[in-house]
Amino acid sequence: MRRKALDSGVSFRPHVKTHKTVEIARMQHGGAAGPITVSTLAEGEFFADAGFEDITWAVPIAPEKLERAAALARRIRQFNLLLDNEATLRALEKVGGPFDVFLEVDCGDHRTGVDPADARSAALAAAIAHSPAVRFRGLLTHAGHSYHARNVEEILPIARQESECLARFRERLGMPKLVRSVGSTPTASVVDRFRDTDEIRPGNYVFYDAFQAAIGSCRLADCAVSVLATVIGSYPERGEAVIDAGALALSKDLGPDHIDPQFGYGVVCDLELRPLADRLVALSQEHGKLKTSRAPAIGERLRIIPNHSCLTAALYDVDAVIEGGRIVAEWRPVRGW
Amino acid sequence: MRRKALDSGVSFRPHVKTHKTVEIARMQHGGAAGPITVSTLAEGEFFADAGFEDITWAVPIAPEKLERAAALARRIRQFNLLLDNEATLRALEKVGGPFDVFLEVDCGDHRTGVDPADARSAALAAAIAHSPAVRFRGLLTHAGHSYHARNVEEILPIARQESECLARFRERLGMPKLVRSVGSTPTASVVDRFRDTDEIRPGNYVFYDAFQAAIGSCRLADCAVSVLATVIGSYPERGEAVIDAGALALSKDLGPDHIDPQFGYGVVCDLELRPLADRLVALSQEHGKLKTSRAPAIGERLRIIPNHSCLTAALYDVDAVIEGGRIVAEWRPVRGW
Repeated sequence: MRRKALDSGVSFRPHVKTHKTVEIARMQHGGAAGPITVSTLAEGEFFADAGFEDITWAVPIAPEKLERAAALARRIRQFNLLLDNEATLRALEKVGGPFDVFLEVDCGDHRTGVDPADARSAALAAAIAHSPAVRFRGLLTHAGHSYHARNVEEILPIARQESECLARFRERLGMPKLVRSVGSTPTASVVDRFRDTDEIRPGNYVFYDAFQAAIGSCRLADCAVSVLATVIGSYPERGEAVIDAGALALSKDLGPDHIDPQFGYGVVCDLELRPLADRLVALSQEHGKLKTSRAPAIGERLRIIPNHSCLTAALYDVDAVIEGGRIVAEWRPVRGW
Repeated sequence: MRRKALDSGVSFRPHVKTHKTVEIARMQHGGAAGPITVSTLAEGEFFADAGFEDITWAVPIAPEKLERAAALARRIRQFNLLLDNEATLRALEKVGGPFDVFLEVDCGDHRTGVDPADARSAALAAAIAHSPAVRFRGLLTHAGHSYHARNVEEILPIARQESECLARFRERLGMPKLVRSVGSTPTASVVDRFRDTDEIRPGNYVFYDAFQAAIGSCRLADCAVSVLATVIGSYPERGEAVIDAGALALSKDLGPDHIDPQFGYGVVCDLELRPLADRLVALSQEHGKLKTSRAPAIGERLRIIPNHSCLTAALYDVDAVIEGGRIVAEWRPVRGW
């Protein structure tokens, strides 16, 4: 992903919320503490402590977190905040600053961000540009609606929409110095080259997961994270078995249920990550129920490729790093907010 | 719940997986370190460290955890393990022991446990009774299928089934000294008095949640845990707003979607826990999307009553304990396995 960004002449600012570890963030930059994106202030502080000096917090800031954000901004080279409304701009002015800010633009996901077609959005951009409390750094969008796609053919037009949305909006604003920052793993995965953009921020690509494989962002063999589980119950008379990995080990994300409502809570594999026909049909807190025709033995070990690696990885205090079938390191993600 | 158990003449062994804190476990026993149920070995070790001497681990044990379980069993008065198959009994015999064990019986949930109508189940009970490596303490069942009920009328027959199942099976075995242990918050909540049983193990009742209120185990006003969130985006033109509580703050449990498929990811309340008409329709990692007709202000604070309090509480390193609107203590749950 980094090579594709550099070959395309765009900046690479991976979202580290997927793994939350210093070790992987450095790997994403070929060993350096390069620019990153975070989802919480706790991540920002953790990566700043580890020497990361250029951080974008890609969630619109809540006013009560401004003081803490300002303290972080003072101790690193660049800490970019996100906003999409005038109330937050006024709150930033009240706290002081100066803050580096990105205006979030909605390119079709309809979660956060201003509507680029609305005249008030250009007025907000002008207000940010003229505010003495902030440095207007750029425009940011997240093509989260790419997660509703079912295949590469459906992702590709969303990738174009994502870049074109910011390119056109910046042109309309007449502010050519604004950085155009886009990001989503599906869109970043399927394009050959990034165009009409200045920066990409994919996160999930670093692990991928069962969901991304199902919609065509990757192959299942590209998934780099799994949960090791043990069979603790076997009920061949009803074609079921139970493993010791439940909702707290996997998360209850339904994965690609828009493609297959019976997909289950992850892809069940053997220890070599070869997918089995078993389906993980139900999770309670510490139990996972399999539909299986195999009658697995008590004690059999399985690997589950999670539906949503970001949510699954965040449940663990330690990641076991495996190379050649052996644990070669333990990495500790940051937690909390 | 404790009073109802004592008034019924049955033992009270609450499941502490819902909160995982020493403070609440003691409150559940009127200040004492009474008998408890745990869902992980890490919980068992944590509560043993805190002086709890009588613990049942209510998940069938995986063979590779036996050595660690044996070490815990040696340092407290009673550590009960659960099994439902002969392979595990043989593994227990191999490790040594002696272990205190419960045989898990399936009373209709079809997750784990032996079928009481199957002749092999009585044979397994006899094998446990004759094994030199274990002390056969009792029969245990979990009426997890009560979670499919839609109201009290549907829960009540499951409560009867739960007790009758163990009472009949024990009679058939002719082993009157076996403890009959039942437990599920819906069934334990709706009966007036516990009959034909020796011990109850509800867990969720200590917090309750939006799910339990929906099926009739409690009123919404009985829910004792909520997640404080802040509005970070407001989009009245599309009837939506976004809060800073997402999947990592709430869990993606769908709650009572068998009653209302549009229920959403928790009940949105004001700061005084009065429910609002807003619906929490989508969660991403750190965003929660509301459908609302209110046009909430940026910075407005809300409380979310979670769908499944066990899964939500487990996401936090610290619980803020609120009395009279102020934080009066901070309690730390145990994590991991």
